Amino acid sequence: MQGGVPTIVIGRLPVYLRALALVESEGKEVTSSQELGKRLGISSAQIRKDLSHFGEFGKQGTGYKISFLQERLKEILNLNQSWPVVLVGVGDLGQAVVHYAGFPEKGFYIKAAFDNAPDKVGRVINDQDLSIRHPDEMEGIIKQEGIKIAILAVPIEAAQAVSESLVKAGIKAILNYAPITLFLPPDVQVQNIDPVVHLQQMTYYL
Amino acid sequence: MQGGVPTIVIGRLPVYLRALALVESEGKEVTSSQELGKRLGISSAQIRKDLSHFGEFGKQGTGYKISFLQERLKEILNLNQSWPVVLVGVGDLGQAVVHYAGFPEKGFYIKAAFDNAPDKVGRVINDQDLSIRHPDEMEGIIKQEGIKIAILAVPIEAAQAVSESLVKAGIKAILNYAPITLFLPPDVQVQNIDPVVHLQQMTYYL
Repeated sequence: MQGGVPTIVIGRLPVYLRALALVESEGKEVTSSQELGKRLGISSAQIRKDLSHFGEFGKQGTGYKISFLQERLKEILNLNQSWPVVLVGVGDLGQAVVHYAGFPEKGFYIKAAFDNAPDKVGRVINDQDLSIRHPDEMEGIIKQEGIKIAILAVPIEAAQAVSESLVKAGIKAILNYAPITLFLPPDVQVQNIDPVVHLQQMTYYL
Repeated sequence: MQGGVPTIVIGRLPVYLRALALVESEGKEVTSSQELGKRLGISSAQIRKDLSHFGEFGKQGTGYKISFLQERLKEILNLNQSWPVVLVGVGDLGQAVVHYAGFPEKGFYIKAAFDNAPDKVGRVINDQDLSIRHPDEMEGIIKQEGIKIAILAVPIEAAQAVSESLVKAGIKAILNYAPITLFLPPDVQVQNIDPVVHLQQMTYYL
């Protein structure tokens, strides 16, 4: 929590942004908490309550102006700027991360990629104008460029140690693909992506 | 919800399993809700409350026997069996999915992979004994093998239509990597993996 807004509320704002982009792509200019709720499987009351943390976004009965709500949500989430990102680990998953268009589309640019495999260091990822560097250069580049965000796609055994190096270099937010809980100072944000956990959350119902 | 246990509780059980595996790998045989909570950043009271939905797992003050709790959680989540899975979309991300050791390690085996790109159909993914098939074969294979789980790694434009075909063929759980909310019958489980949403959940704090 920060500024009194629960983490879980902050966690839903990007989902609202995604739904707004979808509604907008259908040519609409105005939407409602009912419409967003229906698309997201969240109650309209929950959406109104979440947004009320940040002031007034629409009048009862008139709905939300989509472009306005998008701008305000981006402002709240600090998305009115682009963010440089470092990637550590350029295996299959790291390759997929490098080529995933969703990152630059939403303002996240991979500025540097690191891997310690001798056959990878120095290799250039053609279409991305990105060369793979040795982790020895990591701290220097992060500090020099003032980068705050890292994507961690290294094997499980390396994840804790690499994340500590990242934090030492100044990283404040880590998107962690290694299936392990990282232990880092409380001022460092960590989000875990573990597809197995998601599968296991569904098998209960099968 | 099902059987009276809230979805959010079910969602935490795989995370507990992951923490138990970690504690076990350190040579321990017994743990406590305090120890698990500390590792996961969840209160011990929450953990005890979550587990209480499923009966007694340990006595106050004596902790949990790790192997017993693991077995029970696997049983609850239907993980005491292996699950065949189909993969749709074999781009960079699909490749990463195919090679991700975490899936078979936890009992999820990719039985068939589909892609409609002419240069991919018929190609064999060497080390996995898996050939890429045309989506025309999808329905037949899913029905024949009785597969219930699909991993969706197709472009955003194709995701809704492909997911509908999957459901028509008998799929009941979809791990969706396309950054879009799928609209499917309520008896179909969907879990979304959208790394951009995770990044956007952290920029608020930067």
